[in-house]
Amino acid sequence: MNDIFFMKEAIKQAKNGVGFVNPNPLVGSIIVKNSKIIGTGYHKKFGNSHAEINALKQAGKKSENATIYITLEPCFHHGKTPPCVDVIISAGIKRCVIASKDPNPKVNGKSIKKLRENGVEVDVSVCKEEAKEINKPFFKFIRTKLPFVYLKLGITLDGKIATASYNSKWITNTSARHHSHQLRSKYMSLLVGANTIIKDNPSLTCRIKGKNNPYRIILDGNLKIPKTSKVLKNNEDKKTIIITSKDNKKKSINYNANFIFLKGKKFSFKEILVALGKLNIDSILVEGGNKIISQAFKENIIDEGDIIVAPKIIGDSKAVSFVSGFSTNLIKDSIYLKNLEIKKIGNNVCFHFKKS
Amino acid sequence: MNDIFFMKEAIKQAKNGVGFVNPNPLVGSIIVKNSKIIGTGYHKKFGNSHAEINALKQAGKKSENATIYITLEPCFHHGKTPPCVDVIISAGIKRCVIASKDPNPKVNGKSIKKLRENGVEVDVSVCKEEAKEINKPFFKFIRTKLPFVYLKLGITLDGKIATASYNSKWITNTSARHHSHQLRSKYMSLLVGANTIIKDNPSLTCRIKGKNNPYRIILDGNLKIPKTSKVLKNNEDKKTIIITSKDNKKKSINYNANFIFLKGKKFSFKEILVALGKLNIDSILVEGGNKIISQAFKENIIDEGDIIVAPKIIGDSKAVSFVSGFSTNLIKDSIYLKNLEIKKIGNNVCFHFKKS
Repeated sequence: MNDIFFMKEAIKQAKNGVGFVNPNPLVGSIIVKNSKIIGTGYHKKFGNSHAEINALKQAGKKSENATIYITLEPCFHHGKTPPCVDVIISAGIKRCVIASKDPNPKVNGKSIKKLRENGVEVDVSVCKEEAKEINKPFFKFIRTKLPFVYLKLGITLDGKIATASYNSKWITNTSARHHSHQLRSKYMSLLVGANTIIKDNPSLTCRIKGKNNPYRIILDGNLKIPKTSKVLKNNEDKKTIIITSKDNKKKSINYNANFIFLKGKKFSFKEILVALGKLNIDSILVEGGNKIISQAFKENIIDEGDIIVAPKIIGDSKAVSFVSGFSTNLIKDSIYLKNLEIKKIGNNVCFHFKKS
Repeated sequence: MNDIFFMKEAIKQAKNGVGFVNPNPLVGSIIVKNSKIIGTGYHKKFGNSHAEINALKQAGKKSENATIYITLEPCFHHGKTPPCVDVIISAGIKRCVIASKDPNPKVNGKSIKKLRENGVEVDVSVCKEEAKEINKPFFKFIRTKLPFVYLKLGITLDGKIATASYNSKWITNTSARHHSHQLRSKYMSLLVGANTIIKDNPSLTCRIKGKNNPYRIILDGNLKIPKTSKVLKNNEDKKTIIITSKDNKKKSINYNANFIFLKGKKFSFKEILVALGKLNIDSILVEGGNKIISQAFKENIIDEGDIIVAPKIIGDSKAVSFVSGFSTNLIKDSIYLKNLEIKKIGNNVCFHFKKS
């Protein structure tokens, strides 16, 4: 079926925006006339023009009587740009094929209705699941105002993320580590605990050329990370955010970072997600360490994740386990990774799982 | 090449004897005349007639001027059966294709020499690696008098083999557990520690119909396993062997088991392997628990193994790790599994490794 072929092209277009549009959705669009693609476009960057506008521009006057494929229902509302639905109508588009309705309450079917009222033939739900798959953070965030949570972990066969002396370079292989940087380019923020900063002093940047760095979220109830930490010293992009206790407001003045202040010193993931959602952060990549990972499993807030296992054994009970703090008596009560996909990455194995 | 085709058939034949011939080698044989198989045979059971004899019997008088394929050099010596080399010569075989020389000092090229001296054309080393692969326990044992050691482990993603309350049913899936029983049918003995008997009270039998049970070796320095243990109560086949301290000689009289007595109470794998080798046990399947596995890694005596990882997380630091007792400071000093093959078993992953 041609519709599926062209929609898949539109989805490919959408993916070009990965990492640059959050918390907006990834959107791609294709304009087709007499079975030929006469325009392509995608949403390139947060605040820039929308996918369908870029495609219409490319097609120009030929858009008249053409079919437009869009991975998401066009917008109905004045946001950073004028409503796309009006532009489509005035371009003389004959048929509009949409992969998924926009769950944003400001849209949510209104554009589809308007298109039909203006004589545009509309088909919805072509490649719907695929289109939703690429926008999982958006779909969660628009509905719940809570960021999508992705866990990324590299462990040894004995379930460790570091030796007793906190050495962790490197557990996984080069390809697996490249995969981690791809994830950093994809999700809007990266969350680690204060211990990770203190022990490893990581940069928490994305080392893939041309890709955006994620926001660096440091969970540090006691505000104990050193001011010389790389995440503070190299904070030119102002993307370092420390989550700490309200009691540290005064102390925080001397830190080169943005702050989120919460009550108490130990925070639940629930309150962290609410706070980050308020900053319009639509997604979090959780990278560790033990405390944060364990809490994430306890609160069952992980939407999707990769646990990558390397064929190494540390064999030391004092080495750092990726998870602890449970008291499981029976194997049947252990945590089961759901919707599993297993993928070899060279001599490492990725256990990919999804909550739903 | 026809030789490879027919030798592969002979190897297939050889595999029919898995688990029944130890400490003899698996051997298969095919007799071919005018490109047609006129006889097949394999070594069926320890003490029974050899593969080539079974094949010659099937071919009967047609063996004259035929080619015989054998996965191992025919025997030269009177053992449980008369020397096969003489039977081949007197059957009038024209050509003899052999996959591997027999490293047994009683043979080791002597039969090849005798065949040639008697006008039989001989070709050696066709599918040599494959033929050696199926007989790894034999090749190690004949050279070193030490059993081949195979490790089989089922672990959670956090490297545990049981919960803190010693529940372990079941970590791996049905297919992985079936694979374990296949291993039990393949290796001559099964080694576990006293704790495994005390906590799990397993039968340690092979649950595949028609297959042999392995010898059940229990490492129990203090002779603390209960007399009501299944391995003692259901010991009709007299295959339970307890390795314990010399000090327990008197106490041992009341146990329905065979005994190996060693000095002290803690035994090195080296002395265990020597003792089992003396009993003509050519291979050991090590199944656990933590102490035995850790020691096996420490002494680096594992020849080959499977670590099967299930997508479950116990998350309890008091749960039983499969390995401990190392004090690895740097990741680069951790144990690396070598010659790795990774295989999915449903939602479990098997890390198969070999020492060499």
